[in-house]
Amino acid sequence: MKAARIFAYNKPFAESVKLVDVPDPEITGPFDVIVKIAGAGVCRTDIHIVQAVWQQALGDPKLPYTIGHENAGYIEEVGSAVTGLTKGDPVILHPLITCGLCYACRTAYDMACEHGVFPGLDGADGGWAEYLKTSVRNVIKLAPGTDPVPLAPFADAGITAYHAVKKALPYIHPGTKVVVVGVGGLGHFGVQLLKVMSTATVIALDANRDRLTFAKEIGADHVAFAGEDGGVAEILKLTEGRGADVILDFVAENNTPQYALKYLRPARGGTYIVIGYGGTVAPTTLDMIANEINVIGSIVGTYAELSELMELNRQGRVHITSTTFPLKEYAHALDELDAGHVRGRGVLVP
Amino acid sequence: MKAARIFAYNKPFAESVKLVDVPDPEITGPFDVIVKIAGAGVCRTDIHIVQAVWQQALGDPKLPYTIGHENAGYIEEVGSAVTGLTKGDPVILHPLITCGLCYACRTAYDMACEHGVFPGLDGADGGWAEYLKTSVRNVIKLAPGTDPVPLAPFADAGITAYHAVKKALPYIHPGTKVVVVGVGGLGHFGVQLLKVMSTATVIALDANRDRLTFAKEIGADHVAFAGEDGGVAEILKLTEGRGADVILDFVAENNTPQYALKYLRPARGGTYIVIGYGGTVAPTTLDMIANEINVIGSIVGTYAELSELMELNRQGRVHITSTTFPLKEYAHALDELDAGHVRGRGVLVP
Amino acid sequence: MKAARIFAYNKPFAESVKLVDVPDPEITGPFDVIVKIAGAGVCRTDIHIVQAVWQQALGDPKLPYTIGHENAGYIEEVGSAVTGLTKGDPVILHPLITCGLCYACRTAYDMACEHGVFPGLDGADGGWAEYLKTSVRNVIKLAPGTDPVPLAPFADAGITAYHAVKKALPYIHPGTKVVVVGVGGLGHFGVQLLKVMSTATVIALDANRDRLTFAKEIGADHVAFAGEDGGVAEILKLTEGRGADVILDFVAENNTPQYALKYLRPARGGTYIVIGYGGTVAPTTLDMIANEINVIGSIVGTYAELSELMELNRQGRVHITSTTFPLKEYAHALDELDAGHVRGRGVLVP
Amino acid sequence: MKAARIFAYNKPFAESVKLVDVPDPEITGPFDVIVKIAGAGVCRTDIHIVQAVWQQALGDPKLPYTIGHENAGYIEEVGSAVTGLTKGDPVILHPLITCGLCYACRTAYDMACEHGVFPGLDGADGGWAEYLKTSVRNVIKLAPGTDPVPLAPFADAGITAYHAVKKALPYIHPGTKVVVVGVGGLGHFGVQLLKVMSTATVIALDANRDRLTFAKEIGADHVAFAGEDGGVAEILKLTEGRGADVILDFVAENNTPQYALKYLRPARGGTYIVIGYGGTVAPTTLDMIANEINVIGSIVGTYAELSELMELNRQGRVHITSTTFPLKEYAHALDELDAGHVRGRGVLVP
Repeated sequence: MKAARIFAYNKPFAESVKLVDVPDPEITGPFDVIVKIAGAGVCRTDIHIVQAVWQQALGDPKLPYTIGHENAGYIEEVGSAVTGLTKGDPVILHPLITCGLCYACRTAYDMACEHGVFPGLDGADGGWAEYLKTSVRNVIKLAPGTDPVPLAPFADAGITAYHAVKKALPYIHPGTKVVVVGVGGLGHFGVQLLKVMSTATVIALDANRDRLTFAKEIGADHVAFAGEDGGVAEILKLTEGRGADVILDFVAENNTPQYALKYLRPARGGTYIVIGYGGTVAPTTLDMIANEINVIGSIVGTYAELSELMELNRQGRVHITSTTFPLKEYAHALDELDAGHVRGRGVLVP
Repeated sequence: MKAARIFAYNKPFAESVKLVDVPDPEITGPFDVIVKIAGAGVCRTDIHIVQAVWQQALGDPKLPYTIGHENAGYIEEVGSAVTGLTKGDPVILHPLITCGLCYACRTAYDMACEHGVFPGLDGADGGWAEYLKTSVRNVIKLAPGTDPVPLAPFADAGITAYHAVKKALPYIHPGTKVVVVGVGGLGHFGVQLLKVMSTATVIALDANRDRLTFAKEIGADHVAFAGEDGGVAEILKLTEGRGADVILDFVAENNTPQYALKYLRPARGGTYIVIGYGGTVAPTTLDMIANEINVIGSIVGTYAELSELMELNRQGRVHITSTTFPLKEYAHALDELDAGHVRGRGVLVP
Repeated sequence: MKAARIFAYNKPFAESVKLVDVPDPEITGPFDVIVKIAGAGVCRTDIHIVQAVWQQALGDPKLPYTIGHENAGYIEEVGSAVTGLTKGDPVILHPLITCGLCYACRTAYDMACEHGVFPGLDGADGGWAEYLKTSVRNVIKLAPGTDPVPLAPFADAGITAYHAVKKALPYIHPGTKVVVVGVGGLGHFGVQLLKVMSTATVIALDANRDRLTFAKEIGADHVAFAGEDGGVAEILKLTEGRGADVILDFVAENNTPQYALKYLRPARGGTYIVIGYGGTVAPTTLDMIANEINVIGSIVGTYAELSELMELNRQGRVHITSTTFPLKEYAHALDELDAGHVRGRGVLVP
Repeated sequence: MKAARIFAYNKPFAESVKLVDVPDPEITGPFDVIVKIAGAGVCRTDIHIVQAVWQQALGDPKLPYTIGHENAGYIEEVGSAVTGLTKGDPVILHPLITCGLCYACRTAYDMACEHGVFPGLDGADGGWAEYLKTSVRNVIKLAPGTDPVPLAPFADAGITAYHAVKKALPYIHPGTKVVVVGVGGLGHFGVQLLKVMSTATVIALDANRDRLTFAKEIGADHVAFAGEDGGVAEILKLTEGRGADVILDFVAENNTPQYALKYLRPARGGTYIVIGYGGTVAPTTLDMIANEINVIGSIVGTYAELSELMELNRQGRVHITSTTFPLKEYAHALDELDAGHVRGRGVLVP
């Protein structure tokens, strides 16, 4: 089959990642599942992989491997112990294959599974391919007849935003002002989920005016342009000088953390949730305590959270905006993403 | 009456703070209360006041004013609307005079009161004096016959530790390793309260070996010496290489935040709670998200928390270690604290 | 001034409660506030007062007193220590006058204030009158120009529903089925607030088909008719045989608790929240444990909750349906309520 | 092998349950585990099984089957996919075999597993035998050299108490009075765990004076004798007339629920947690709302909770009191339990 695999770091996308022929995956264990990929999302993390941002954190995974961690498709084949899944069933996949036995898995914190495998990221083969081998443990069955292609971005962008919004909920009550930094693939879920799951007043912040228009269309109460001051003045104005109660930073690189600390409210537990990455957040401990600031890191959501999010989608309460590309145009898709030209999320179709 | 007042920043203690004669305070409002001070704690914050660390954060309070924000004593006189308090009643005082009407006060978050006055810190006269004028709102009556002198440190050091431990509780279950950084006035409460309020395994960390012995005496399960590597190696060893699940940093200046990030467990929401101040904490956003780190600022506890803590003390479950000094020796007390010679907390007695 | 006062229990409304002349209230304490009533809600509790349901629970309050515990109007006069309120300001009143000093008040649980006074219910004069004397502690200022008349029902019916929905939130995630029992004054808030504050799927249950139509109009996802089986079969059908995850019973008299236990889901912590009263709820302890059932009583919300709810109303996210009556027609209003003819809430206008 | 199996309901124990020869269990699936039983607890639920209390709730399981749901022993044999377990390893077993895949399992609520099997209770063969076949999913490995016999009661009595205490924690702060009803197999864990995990003041209530002495020995702060009034007067006295803030009823049959409602504090969310069963709890809805009472059912704890509890035991913070009987004396052990003669918990040894 065809698969887009990373062969080297820090080269142009078309050189780092190449479309090559590899053998089809095969069932070897009782709980294995092979999925025929229908759609695989294109994520900023894929760019970061190429840039070697994750190389050290992931223990220098052996190259090449197939990237793509945001996958949906159809059941192709299942292992001997798998029940309830039949060839042709539409499915979406949680990105992490978990063990189900460790303390993290037992306590609803499965993305910290002690034996987790993260296809497309940690060296295991991911979904920028025709088929993906995974486990029954990370399959969510969709309603019969569902088209999985446009749903792929829920598998990572969606639940990452969902997980972050859940972390924000304890800090939100009517009147709370929440700033969403970055209205891209993740942020466009963030804006919608905040409106659906909470009573927050949502302020979307972006350096791209097009995206601010988009943010209004999907429900943001206010928008702020991240100009030379990172949007600080505009947000202080929108919050009557008080600052944001909660910030969800889906960018968290360049200077967004520094600006965030400037428009985070200076009292009563202002909460800054970090979802993007690439930068550094550096508050003084005096500010931390005088203002009782919380700085909270948030990673991809759990399997259960993905199933909850799919229910919200089924009810029509959250919508995806996406652009599809043929699998062979993966490099173009990465370029478009890098250039900020993708509205919502890009999806590769084999 | 005699009062120790700050006249200038950044001089030797005996010059910045002087013992002078001032008029006795008088009742002017219906809820005013005048307390005859029996004991007033000596806090690292008093040193920070002299060092002008708070000057800007507090809006440059007008000098001179009487310092001392950790006070206990006896009711001397009360305003016309005060009920239930009689001259001679032993009392301890919450450090903040709150309004009781704002949203923060209404939601059990009174230390963020929108109209709060913080005697001894923000320019209002504090308790390093013979008498202190405060409000019925921050008085806690002690059992008849109680000697308030040794209890004064509960009023700030105690509830600050209590508040921080409460923030840690959601992250603690049997087997959780909690590091207490700094076994001084606050930390010695922290060690005890963790053992009383949770099932944590407590590791006390200090650069002073005497204090590690002290930590063992008051209940720490393990101790670690903060040597050249800030204790990193020893804590990794005590946690079987996994790192600390939770850190309560009662120092948070010099390099303690940098070291803390090195021995904070690299997965599953390691939580770093900042109580001390003076330094900067600067994680990368990649570490924040990959490890789902929480960095949480914690300030002094609420009035209700002080009453809960006094109940723990009444039950004999938390003990104070303190050294008393006559009020006129305030400068010596500050020197001793600064030199790390005070075991537990220093208390001034007028 | 004119005031509708209860003189005797268990008579026809027009005999139990009489409109009489009484002296205008006067400021006597520094925090007193006198409000010129614009609208005062008519509540099932007013019927229960006349039926002596509360007589014993409230320590047999001395008759006569003015009833009416759901009040909004304009500031008329304030005590010497009151700031920020001026004659003519539109206001809504939390029903309980709290002390602000007890442990309950300090811990955001003010409706359990140890010294609370409940005008219109416990013997203190309420708002079915031209003027009401209350305290600055239970006043919420409305935006200039706001008409307080239609807002009165937020003061009790609204926050009672809000408080109950907040108790339900920990049990709700996408896909959760919540049954609202009774779409009257409280229930019509309950339906809306569940949709605004949570991701619940809402099933409204009522014995009045008109109200089911009304429920759909205000956002219920499904409705069920409480026929001979109390709606059990219909709800089991709507929940695919699984039963309701959460029930908010705004009636809780007659047989609603018995039916509720029949359609509460038989596993995983089905939660039955009791807001109405008059009946008895009697699960076996075997059912309680085998199904981990929660049965949770819920009373009126806190002052802070009322301010949060007013913010939701200001944002246009919650709407009141009400019918106004002149004050002198209070007996007719009670009759209409008792007969189930009031859509939403009745409001008396002096 | 020998196994004690239930053949008929409602006969004397020695007739309902008979010791018979059955074939040894065999590995058939990849995750199967066979445990050589070292100790199997004797629980009031075993008596209830014989009394057919569970017959209907469990769908009338086919007789005979081997009872015994509180098991510890040594690994005998494991299936092909099991790693990390070797013949001879000492283990304790969570009572429920869970699927690990359903929403309940994914959200740390595994005792509500949609496909759970409960050996010894629901018709699957339990542990009153020489060997038990179970799954890797419910095995907890003990430290090498641990004697599993005395630990068996943690597997059900222990985690049931642990689970209930966890439900109580949100309602406990310093000064909270918690009544433990029944100081038997479960209650003796309840008393200890409340002291270890919370700051509660614990009042043990029992109708057996011997057990009250025992309760004091294991840490109860106060004891009350359940005489003719069920202990109501004594508890009101011990709580200065206020009533208990929280009740953990490990009996919940006969009249204990009725008495509990009489000594539950009449304000601010008094919480009654039901762990035992056999009776009915029947508060009026007026009491439910006026006092904001919570009535909460609690069943056996999760796998993760059992591992947490074993850690507490390893640290020496919770102790078991037990009496062992040879397996063949199972009927005598049941008689002794029924007569109230067992201090702590009875354990059968094959």
